[in-house]
Amino acid sequence: MEPEAAREVFRGRLIRVAVERWPAGEREIVQHPGACALVALAGAGDVVLVRQLREAVRASLIEIPAGILDAADADGAACAARELVEETGYQPTADLKPLGTILTSPGFSDERIELFVLRGVEPGPRRGEDDGIEVVLMPFAGAVDAVRDGRIVDAKTVAALLLVEARGANA
Amino acid sequence: MEPEAAREVFRGRLIRVAVERWPAGEREIVQHPGACALVALAGAGDVVLVRQLREAVRASLIEIPAGILDAADADGAACAARELVEETGYQPTADLKPLGTILTSPGFSDERIELFVLRGVEPGPRRGEDDGIEVVLMPFAGAVDAVRDGRIVDAKTVAALLLVEARGANA
Repeated sequence: MEPEAAREVFRGRLIRVAVERWPAGEREIVQHPGACALVALAGAGDVVLVRQLREAVRASLIEIPAGILDAADADGAACAARELVEETGYQPTADLKPLGTILTSPGFSDERIELFVLRGVEPGPRRGEDDGIEVVLMPFAGAVDAVRDGRIVDAKTVAALLLVEARGANA
Repeated sequence: MEPEAAREVFRGRLIRVAVERWPAGEREIVQHPGACALVALAGAGDVVLVRQLREAVRASLIEIPAGILDAADADGAACAARELVEETGYQPTADLKPLGTILTSPGFSDERIELFVLRGVEPGPRRGEDDGIEVVLMPFAGAVDAVRDGRIVDAKTVAALLLVEARGANA
């Protein structure tokens, strides 16, 4: 399934933008390398979150750890484990399990995020430079409450937390 | 909260793209007009979904009815009611209730989707032209299963269905 015609109108470091001609009309499409994200649960039932400035929305958001898929990552789980360590210092003490994949905005973007859940982490030193990321620990039930009352609005975080909630102990 | 500098690199009919300079570095940002979407429940407990080609991801997706915020819409609820009728022919027989707002991809886009739930619709003629949108009715519990097993991957649809599920009869 390919367009009848396409022209690239922007090529950035993260995204590319193309205008494509399809039978239904012209489409403006943002091409993104894809991403990974994970719900990391510590022993006491706390979920490991991060708060960071998201310039695009002019606000600091609470999100699950996430990052861009890197050519050096063996797979999405490796990406998610790497991002957890880099962003929070927490280390996996169990296997990451797949929660599913979401398409964040299929009306105009091909961005795809692979979601994982990890039941077992331990704190450690953060390797990343001071990148403005603050680690936030929250009881899992409190994070779900924050989704429901609008304190958490990032789509991948909403989806991933509610997927873990919906799966219960099976996730 | 504004960037130190910004230049527009693309202005399309739907999106604009800017490269902005912030203290943390350069950001490529997709500006989007914002959208609305709704979980519409018929009397028997079926949820009204649509299947349509999403050229950006080269696939047909099952989604809740949704659309771009229009200057003529009084608010997000008016947008969502309009899109329901245009895309599916179903008419609201109750008030739309807000479910919350999600930011679909705050790492590179300002897109914001207002989500609603509507408990009460009745079928009617579709007003829109034949735009390739197929109406899909699914029992609500079956739609939640489709989220969990990966047949539904659109982020707004995942978030909205699970928010209704998490709220139960209170939504």
